[in-house]
Amino acid sequence: MAGSPLVNDLRAALGDDAVLTDPDLLRLHRKDEADLCEAGTPLVVTRPRSTADVVEVVTIAGRYGVPVVPQGARTGLAGAANAVDGAVVVSMVAMDAVLEIDPVSRIAVVQPGVVNAALSAEVAKQGLWYPPDPGSWEMSTIGGNVSTNAGGMCCVKYGVTTEYVLGLEVVLASGEVLRTGRRTAKGVAGYDLTRLFVGSEGTLGVITEVTVALRPAPAESLTMVAVFPTTAAAGRAVARIAEDGLTPSLLELIDRTYLRAIEAYRPMGLRTDVEALLLASADTGSQAAGDLARLAELCEAAGAEEIYAATDAVEAAALLQARRLGHAAMEKFARESFPGGNGGMVIDDVAVPRGALAALLDGVARIAVECDVTIGVVGHAGDGNMHPNIVVDRADPASLERGRRAFDEIIRLGLELGGTCTGEHGVGLLKRDWLAREIGPVSLRVHQAIKAALDPAGLFNPGKVF
Amino acid sequence: MAGSPLVNDLRAALGDDAVLTDPDLLRLHRKDEADLCEAGTPLVVTRPRSTADVVEVVTIAGRYGVPVVPQGARTGLAGAANAVDGAVVVSMVAMDAVLEIDPVSRIAVVQPGVVNAALSAEVAKQGLWYPPDPGSWEMSTIGGNVSTNAGGMCCVKYGVTTEYVLGLEVVLASGEVLRTGRRTAKGVAGYDLTRLFVGSEGTLGVITEVTVALRPAPAESLTMVAVFPTTAAAGRAVARIAEDGLTPSLLELIDRTYLRAIEAYRPMGLRTDVEALLLASADTGSQAAGDLARLAELCEAAGAEEIYAATDAVEAAALLQARRLGHAAMEKFARESFPGGNGGMVIDDVAVPRGALAALLDGVARIAVECDVTIGVVGHAGDGNMHPNIVVDRADPASLERGRRAFDEIIRLGLELGGTCTGEHGVGLLKRDWLAREIGPVSLRVHQAIKAALDPAGLFNPGKVF
Repeated sequence: MAGSPLVNDLRAALGDDAVLTDPDLLRLHRKDEADLCEAGTPLVVTRPRSTADVVEVVTIAGRYGVPVVPQGARTGLAGAANAVDGAVVVSMVAMDAVLEIDPVSRIAVVQPGVVNAALSAEVAKQGLWYPPDPGSWEMSTIGGNVSTNAGGMCCVKYGVTTEYVLGLEVVLASGEVLRTGRRTAKGVAGYDLTRLFVGSEGTLGVITEVTVALRPAPAESLTMVAVFPTTAAAGRAVARIAEDGLTPSLLELIDRTYLRAIEAYRPMGLRTDVEALLLASADTGSQAAGDLARLAELCEAAGAEEIYAATDAVEAAALLQARRLGHAAMEKFARESFPGGNGGMVIDDVAVPRGALAALLDGVARIAVECDVTIGVVGHAGDGNMHPNIVVDRADPASLERGRRAFDEIIRLGLELGGTCTGEHGVGLLKRDWLAREIGPVSLRVHQAIKAALDPAGLFNPGKVF
Repeated sequence: MAGSPLVNDLRAALGDDAVLTDPDLLRLHRKDEADLCEAGTPLVVTRPRSTADVVEVVTIAGRYGVPVVPQGARTGLAGAANAVDGAVVVSMVAMDAVLEIDPVSRIAVVQPGVVNAALSAEVAKQGLWYPPDPGSWEMSTIGGNVSTNAGGMCCVKYGVTTEYVLGLEVVLASGEVLRTGRRTAKGVAGYDLTRLFVGSEGTLGVITEVTVALRPAPAESLTMVAVFPTTAAAGRAVARIAEDGLTPSLLELIDRTYLRAIEAYRPMGLRTDVEALLLASADTGSQAAGDLARLAELCEAAGAEEIYAATDAVEAAALLQARRLGHAAMEKFARESFPGGNGGMVIDDVAVPRGALAALLDGVARIAVECDVTIGVVGHAGDGNMHPNIVVDRADPASLERGRRAFDEIIRLGLELGGTCTGEHGVGLLKRDWLAREIGPVSLRVHQAIKAALDPAGLFNPGKVF
């Protein structure tokens, strides 16, 4: 395959270094972090170094009628970046420059391969802040964050990725280079094409440049922990907090399964004898102490058994770190839950209106019993966005079947409660069928019409989303 | 015309009360508030009372191949709601219900005809706040605000309309009813169709329901005024404020022409012997006084001649009221600037990166001299979004020509400075040619492809935007 005319054309255009056909590398680029999703083996992986390189890749692939699958760091959790057999993968990791930081206009212009944490560090040097902080932020790229409209822990107060994307450069299926958006704080010239591409999961074009809005560096925050006798009680606390008009800068839930997984992964002195823990922060400057006290009061009123405030920034950082370790800890826990390290997990990502959070959490507990599976629950409680992680034995078809059923039941419940099948991970392959059910036939036809208008031959990321 | 088959069909479907053909009413619905824009006379004005009514109107108009022009309160400033000859106008003012307010999820579901101020008053009763506050907020409808992605004074801290639109119901050209978005704080299921419709100025469908995000009621704010010897000095103050990491809750500029117009319209004791005034507020609770002091310091460093803080909420409200009166005052000033009340104004709406604001303001002053026109400048300085108002004599072709030249020169300068031809008013008819220049041929083709995908027959609002 390495000598195919397509690969030869790519080599001629990009140089040998940017065109990978080594079988190990092809295998490496088959999939993202989503467990139990189908994936194909690409024909070739390209690593463009410029927009012109991307134009070459898209044009050449288009000429051969071979699908193009864009990839960032492949940390996604829905299979959106999974390759299809014979595809040209466009890995954007070599385009990782921060092109410009403007502290007066509070914007940065970056290439899509820059890692979220690298951009954050760079802007911090100028007293600025790029808020979106998906769990993968130390590895994931801005291009991937934009393509999936990534969320994170700070979103409860500061919003998700799309709120920070002002403009894009995108290579279209035609090989044309589209520039969308602006560098100004406001602008309404034409359709909001920028946000049409944000969250489109690589199905409409390849993003080659991103202009993001920045904020002034955040204020110091104060952090507290409240533990609850049931996850639903924690959910009720979240509703009370919202109703009270408070806007914590962080409001996360960790359930007992997760707490135990984290303690087993790295002992941090978390209580593992409680059903749920809420982690909350306030960054309202001189009012933060008062806001934290009010958060504590509301948690107590909702049935919290114990509340303690972090005594200093170090302790607060440790609590956040425990939350951040959750995914890796839970993966290890799942893996080791079955003989031969065959355990895996299917990760739900439902979001419900905040008022329905307690009902969702009650329902998840019931579904775990009904489907006879272990489900660890963690998530962005303040946004009503929960990640029930269903533990399955990959080697046991019956276990997989039970896990898949629980996965579906949780989404069904989320939709019944007025929610969505994906709060922040995206549709990818994992929730493709659910998307159609959630949005309905009219919206699906509009999606297909827009896809056909921009990518008539179906070149980009076929089989994903819808 | 009243007995045309189209009108008869509309009467049969909606009832006589909802189908207007009185010539005076037809004339009334010809245009919005944009001066000097072309407008046609509609064949009929419909006032649907339900989504089903809108489906009827769109289906019937589509059957006859007659264009459909959606209208709200017709307070727009770009001609986007102007009728075309023989069109069916869909006036959404009778669909003005607030359907639901949910204080826990902090959302409201409304019909598009609800007036912004009415929604604001309604949610305020529950301690909630709908921030977007265009100058027209006491008259304009949420549907119109959504269709133009309206801005306002609070946007410098709280963002524009699109940040608050979670979901929409839209009647498509096919007569199908599309539901977009969600009721949850986060959600990434499929393309962001919601924001594709926000700001699309009635060219893609008729919005029949809007789900908006709300905030807790804002904190009390403190307000100050700084006066400057040049508008550019005020622009430099804005850049320093941004660079310093401050986020005022309001940061408005009023120039001397405007100050004089306001004082003539309603004397408020504003200084009319200065070139520019900055109005700034801080709503950071117990830190507001400190933030206001820092704002004053930065204004002084940028050359402010005098600074005074409002002593109480009443005085602060009066200052804001003076700013809000600007549009009406300037209209009167323009009208009376020429014999026979023939004066009018062409309103620019450029937005530039904050760092370029001083250069824009200097340029506007130069253009006024070069084109021999009076230009009053007012705007959302903190967003870099300025409204230079060019005074013209409608009865004098030479004056109109000089005004049009100044209008174009200001946009040209705005684009050169990295800005946009419209920060918040929209494209409509007024900036249609400039949109094409700003976004370029590739983006224009993408716009046309999306329009064709959703509205293949060009039913909705033909001739607008592009």
